[in-house]
Amino acid sequence: MERPRHQGMAKNTYMRWRLPLVCLLWEVAMIVLFGVFVRFSPEADAHWEEEKREMNLTSDIENDFYFRYPSFQDVHVMIFVGFGFLMTFLKRYGFGAVGFNFLLAAFGIQWALLMQGWFHSFKNGKILIGVENLINADFCVGSVCIAFGAILGKTSPIQLLIMTLFQVTLFSVNEYILLNLLHIKDAGGSMTIHTFGAYFGLTVTRILYRPNLEQSKDKQGSVYHSDLFAMIGTLYLWMYWPSFNSAISDHGDAQHRAAINTYCSLAACVLTTMAFSSMLQKKGKLDMVHIQNATLAGGVAVGTSAEMMLTPYGSLIVGFICGIVSTVGYVYLTPFLESRLHIQDTCGIHNLHAMPGLIGGIVGAITAAAATEDVYGKEGFIKAFDFTGTYRTRTPSVQGGFQAAGIMVSLLMAFAGGAVVGAILKLPIWGDPAAENCFEDDIYWEVPEDEESDVYHMHNPDKPASP
Amino acid sequence: MERPRHQGMAKNTYMRWRLPLVCLLWEVAMIVLFGVFVRFSPEADAHWEEEKREMNLTSDIENDFYFRYPSFQDVHVMIFVGFGFLMTFLKRYGFGAVGFNFLLAAFGIQWALLMQGWFHSFKNGKILIGVENLINADFCVGSVCIAFGAILGKTSPIQLLIMTLFQVTLFSVNEYILLNLLHIKDAGGSMTIHTFGAYFGLTVTRILYRPNLEQSKDKQGSVYHSDLFAMIGTLYLWMYWPSFNSAISDHGDAQHRAAINTYCSLAACVLTTMAFSSMLQKKGKLDMVHIQNATLAGGVAVGTSAEMMLTPYGSLIVGFICGIVSTVGYVYLTPFLESRLHIQDTCGIHNLHAMPGLIGGIVGAITAAAATEDVYGKEGFIKAFDFTGTYRTRTPSVQGGFQAAGIMVSLLMAFAGGAVVGAILKLPIWGDPAAENCFEDDIYWEVPEDEESDVYHMHNPDKPASP
Amino acid sequence: MERPRHQGMAKNTYMRWRLPLVCLLWEVAMIVLFGVFVRFSPEADAHWEEEKREMNLTSDIENDFYFRYPSFQDVHVMIFVGFGFLMTFLKRYGFGAVGFNFLLAAFGIQWALLMQGWFHSFKNGKILIGVENLINADFCVGSVCIAFGAILGKTSPIQLLIMTLFQVTLFSVNEYILLNLLHIKDAGGSMTIHTFGAYFGLTVTRILYRPNLEQSKDKQGSVYHSDLFAMIGTLYLWMYWPSFNSAISDHGDAQHRAAINTYCSLAACVLTTMAFSSMLQKKGKLDMVHIQNATLAGGVAVGTSAEMMLTPYGSLIVGFICGIVSTVGYVYLTPFLESRLHIQDTCGIHNLHAMPGLIGGIVGAITAAAATEDVYGKEGFIKAFDFTGTYRTRTPSVQGGFQAAGIMVSLLMAFAGGAVVGAILKLPIWGDPAAENCFEDDIYWEVPEDEESDVYHMHNPDKPASP
Repeated sequence: MERPRHQGMAKNTYMRWRLPLVCLLWEVAMIVLFGVFVRFSPEADAHWEEEKREMNLTSDIENDFYFRYPSFQDVHVMIFVGFGFLMTFLKRYGFGAVGFNFLLAAFGIQWALLMQGWFHSFKNGKILIGVENLINADFCVGSVCIAFGAILGKTSPIQLLIMTLFQVTLFSVNEYILLNLLHIKDAGGSMTIHTFGAYFGLTVTRILYRPNLEQSKDKQGSVYHSDLFAMIGTLYLWMYWPSFNSAISDHGDAQHRAAINTYCSLAACVLTTMAFSSMLQKKGKLDMVHIQNATLAGGVAVGTSAEMMLTPYGSLIVGFICGIVSTVGYVYLTPFLESRLHIQDTCGIHNLHAMPGLIGGIVGAITAAAATEDVYGKEGFIKAFDFTGTYRTRTPSVQGGFQAAGIMVSLLMAFAGGAVVGAILKLPIWGDPAAENCFEDDIYWEVPEDEESDVYHMHNPDKPASP
Repeated sequence: MERPRHQGMAKNTYMRWRLPLVCLLWEVAMIVLFGVFVRFSPEADAHWEEEKREMNLTSDIENDFYFRYPSFQDVHVMIFVGFGFLMTFLKRYGFGAVGFNFLLAAFGIQWALLMQGWFHSFKNGKILIGVENLINADFCVGSVCIAFGAILGKTSPIQLLIMTLFQVTLFSVNEYILLNLLHIKDAGGSMTIHTFGAYFGLTVTRILYRPNLEQSKDKQGSVYHSDLFAMIGTLYLWMYWPSFNSAISDHGDAQHRAAINTYCSLAACVLTTMAFSSMLQKKGKLDMVHIQNATLAGGVAVGTSAEMMLTPYGSLIVGFICGIVSTVGYVYLTPFLESRLHIQDTCGIHNLHAMPGLIGGIVGAITAAAATEDVYGKEGFIKAFDFTGTYRTRTPSVQGGFQAAGIMVSLLMAFAGGAVVGAILKLPIWGDPAAENCFEDDIYWEVPEDEESDVYHMHNPDKPASP
Repeated sequence: MERPRHQGMAKNTYMRWRLPLVCLLWEVAMIVLFGVFVRFSPEADAHWEEEKREMNLTSDIENDFYFRYPSFQDVHVMIFVGFGFLMTFLKRYGFGAVGFNFLLAAFGIQWALLMQGWFHSFKNGKILIGVENLINADFCVGSVCIAFGAILGKTSPIQLLIMTLFQVTLFSVNEYILLNLLHIKDAGGSMTIHTFGAYFGLTVTRILYRPNLEQSKDKQGSVYHSDLFAMIGTLYLWMYWPSFNSAISDHGDAQHRAAINTYCSLAACVLTTMAFSSMLQKKGKLDMVHIQNATLAGGVAVGTSAEMMLTPYGSLIVGFICGIVSTVGYVYLTPFLESRLHIQDTCGIHNLHAMPGLIGGIVGAITAAAATEDVYGKEGFIKAFDFTGTYRTRTPSVQGGFQAAGIMVSLLMAFAGGAVVGAILKLPIWGDPAAENCFEDDIYWEVPEDEESDVYHMHNPDKPASP
């Protein structure tokens, strides 16, 4: 009962040897590198009892695991269910959305543990990992999931793995420059994750521009139930974003504050998204695309400042603005980017991550520049911005300047890196689909029969239903 | 390719200016009020280091954040995914169920932070918020989500926002009377959340009675996959209910106990629900409506007593009874309420929240009245019921009496408040749908085209595709 | 508009009196037994204040609740949403998958609290339960959910309840032998949960062999959206598996380490699953069955060793191997087991739980045998393997031998128990479906009317229903 291959065979999308080869070789490389470099951090090592005494800890509960593990699990859900299901909105690309996101993230977290480990957790020739490394690896992969949103439906799994390899590498370099060299704060990643990830992805999709993409236009929309699946992704991202922005903040008040600020910003964002979604449509009806995406912009935009004394009303203001910016972006900017700049952005990451990410970087710079000892307390001020050691004398306004510089560095890395990686992905050897086969699971997945006999007709209206 | 507008245009359901206006104005009001009133609690403020010393805390782990944040996130999931998806069972109201729930909850939590803040966290002219406030705001909104269940599919988003505004206000007043004036215990909200929310919603739907609702009867059922989406909501409510009932209990044994009691009650409830679902149907088949809803009644009914020494077997008994009561309610009471009392209760909240909520209040009163120093220990007894200060001399039986009074107050507030709010919502200016357009996303949402024509063919292969 | 009953009525699948009777009687039995035996553990009892002083604890945060509750909730989600939705892949058995899993797990956790309580938490005639007992009860039920996977679609709810009753009993005996008599480590249950549960289920399905099952072959596949529902189950199992394997490990480093090892193993497993899924299919396309299942094998296979010093690269190796073994199993072994050994394994639990479980047991034995004081530290070594009291003098290699013995005991219990329970379930009085009615919700559930005809009319009222 072989289903007729109706996809154009102009391109060779045969994955049988290429995909397994990449997966297996890279995984073997991971094993070797982990074998040489990766060990447990003292808090996860069986020597913990001795460590505890050395650190003068009286209880196991002070192991970092108990400060961060619940947030880690929330972040984990955001990466795999959140991003994965958010992208299932396409009527016939659900397997690719969830499945390829699963694949690239599973590879990406391993490579990120290594890359970030070399930069941040390297001691005596070994990378020592604990729960914070797991969170950071998930964060790093988050930026790849974002970029995936721009090229969703138009690339082969091999291209995604190659992009992941490079993007994780560049992410780690950029992160090192920002956090270590510029000594800036970005706990929720407005700059490192969102700005970088989004502009990287947009550059890649620009370079992979497909002039004939309207050939698969009928598949680029949603169906009723695919929109509901996507709402699962949206809600998990929305609900767990307070954990995302607070996951690697300092113990105590910083984690607490970051969660509250994010909660507030996201709540405000929902209202302005709804308002503008209705306002910008002639019939005043709400558009699921906006609800699924723009409601999240508030979380992106407090990624830098959530752990600072942004205050709840400051957060509301940021969320208020971002809901508007993001929704307006979906209505006016996305079509413009596609028609004029040839940027085909499947999920509209420019509206959800790029612009709110920039806003987040700017809000962070301003919030940092406005910090005073009065507001933070003497100790809190030093702790919040790590004004110790070499940075003992740095002032808030200088910090604000460095924060702003961080935005620029992230943009540069994204454009330059995206251009190079886009060029690599353009090579005709990675098995990407032809234009008429984009947004279609059938190319890379065994799709169940039945049902389709009819779904099939749907996409081939020229063929008779009962032959 | 404009889809024909086939809905009756007897009513003006055009949202374009009204909905944005309400959303934007109210959000601006929130920003102003937050700006004037809301600040961080000491545990979320950058002055925490000093606070820690003052409170003689030795570790950041004693920040309330680490006691409550995991429960907060579970509660958050219950409100947005739990309630949201539970209501997606209708075949063509999934966008409205998840989307409007999202909208009203996002607004409600902000207003609840203010209202509850003025009553409970007001110090020196400021509302100081921490993680416990976030949980309480979610709780408050939970009561609105419950009321939404009664009017699901029959109201405009503006009506829902107006109901939220008033219901949150009344909830906070009622909660203040119960917790502060009557000094009663209700950590899981059997009275404040469920009894109040459900009878409020039932009163509203009674006042909004639609005599011609049978015109949209064909849309009031489920389809196969919508029932599965609803099970996502059910399971998340069921699984996380132990977190709900323990989220704001005292640190230590009270949170621990509340989780165990709720776990037990819910487990028992599933078995009696299944039993009666099969028993009350002629063919002995199970009904998804019961499984989706009545299985949760056990969580509602230990909302007051879970943190008390209800004991695991006491919890099983409560769950046992509530599974029966709730399922019987769906089979016999809901039709009766609709035909005789003109109460059109879309989700059957009378069975899931109203009756179990009342039972929960009563069980709480009895459990409190039966408390002894022997069972609780001398210190535990005082701590469990806060028998300190003015209440130093209150006895368990008096406490039981006050608990019972709390039920009555909640009922009164619900009926009176629901009547007033129902009357306001009846005004013909809020854009509610005509009877024949109820339970239909098409009125307020852009619904994706296609699919259906083909889904139709799929299951009716004998029918020609193009008639 | 009664849907025609097309199922054969050769078998009596009428549940109306049998199912309620079993549910109600058993729940009453639970209440009585809980009343006689179950009380709160000291950490959940109102006497906690006194307990705290006795144990020299200075803060409520040292209550076991705060060490384990977040993991408990993750495990809870795995059992109810993870297993429940994983099994919704069948096109017309979604209600049965989620609903029966809900029923059997809700009963099973109660019975497990008792059985495991008698063996492990029995003091002065009472079973004292706390959060760790809840986790263990969920674990125990996990093994029943696994066995359910083998017989999915082919049994009545009564058979499932009977199987649950016996399997929980046998699980607890086997667990007691392994943990207490053999003194072995198995925190994530490679042996007690997976090996035992899977071979038990495979034995049961062998005994219930249905020679005419091809009569319902058309219903044994998936449809597009049922595969997406199943991915919800997959991802929640995958994401929360680190919580599963660390939930009952020792406080501190052991929990921390178990989470890291599991995270690594699962990540590697995804890559080899994808590789072999593509490689073993002629057209090189990925198969959802593999992605849904084999990606999880890495979690199963570090169930014993995750809390040991397996190291991250050791975990990667285990995950690498198990992704391959499991995927190859789906392609070659499952058909072989069915055609030659008459083992009809609906979900392929042999590939996901049986083989990886065995591997997990073996890896655990090797890791234990290889333990040295050098790697673990003097204290860590003793703590990790509980080499205290009677076991003071046990050496790692002896421990490795006992671990291996644990695998054999689990296998024996599974085969013997499965045979007996299979024979009981074969009795013709439990209402199982005829072969042509397997994998069909219609037998035991009220299934909503056909979707399609109505959805169709609803949106195209102008078109006639039957042209």
